Amino acid sequence: MYLTKSISAISLGALLIATTGFAASHSDKAAKAAVGARHAQMQIIAYHTGILGGMAKGEAEYDAEKAKAAASNLHAAAMLDPSTMWVEGTENGMVEGSDAKPEVWTDAEGFASKLENLQTASAAMMDAAGTDLDALKASMGNLGKACGACHDDYRVPKN
Amino acid sequence: MYLTKSISAISLGALLIATTGFAASHSDKAAKAAVGARHAQMQIIAYHTGILGGMAKGEAEYDAEKAKAAASNLHAAAMLDPSTMWVEGTENGMVEGSDAKPEVWTDAEGFASKLENLQTASAAMMDAAGTDLDALKASMGNLGKACGACHDDYRVPKN
Repeated sequence: MYLTKSISAISLGALLIATTGFAASHSDKAAKAAVGARHAQMQIIAYHTGILGGMAKGEAEYDAEKAKAAASNLHAAAMLDPSTMWVEGTENGMVEGSDAKPEVWTDAEGFASKLENLQTASAAMMDAAGTDLDALKASMGNLGKACGACHDDYRVPKN
Repeated sequence: MYLTKSISAISLGALLIATTGFAASHSDKAAKAAVGARHAQMQIIAYHTGILGGMAKGEAEYDAEKAKAAASNLHAAAMLDPSTMWVEGTENGMVEGSDAKPEVWTDAEGFASKLENLQTASAAMMDAAGTDLDALKASMGNLGKACGACHDDYRVPKN
């Protein structure tokens, strides 16, 4: 009886540790995947902003079709539903590689408003990019401002 | 005169080398960025397929709102205009990290058709995911097939 009880206690303890361990590692994996997915979102935004910026700066030839496609992809990435990727508990310090300030969640309204500014700027760029180079150039300012304003408030400074 | 000529020749040579070097490195950078952007596209697709798959397999609780958001993001990533990221000259062997077979470009029609299958499957998932778990499960098959069929034909085998 005493032995059985001890074994049960040990087994229960081991089970609890194993379960907790699994839960932690499972949720770590999910958190890392969420951070990776939003980095991917940012990468698609940066890549297409780079195509448009290259044309605006005269480093690449203006190409209406390419500019339109880039603006459309940029806008699509900005319009992704944030709820699946910007999940609570994945701020800087909690998950390796995360640069998100806790304010993304503690000031969710402010973050949502900054995201909306980006969506407005990328929608405007969709109209401008295919029009002509001057329209594209005129639209770059608001786009850059929308990126920068959100990074200032909701991303930890780059080292 | 002789000295001046030599210096000019050396300068011209150095300039040519520098220019060629810059051009090559500029286009390398663009090619790498394109490959990175499509990896980001794939990552967003994989991440959201994983959320839906977790629910389908019972590893995560079914959550209609989350499933709908995941399907919507998956579809948005599948709908990105491929022309900015799937640029010629960025196949496996040409750009570090690229797993794209040359057939993406030599058989562009076949690739476009496989991409369309994914878009159809992800659109169907958008309807199914928010309905109920059975509908979600029923839609997983076509989604998985669309991923696999394209990887079989247009991605080099993973090591």
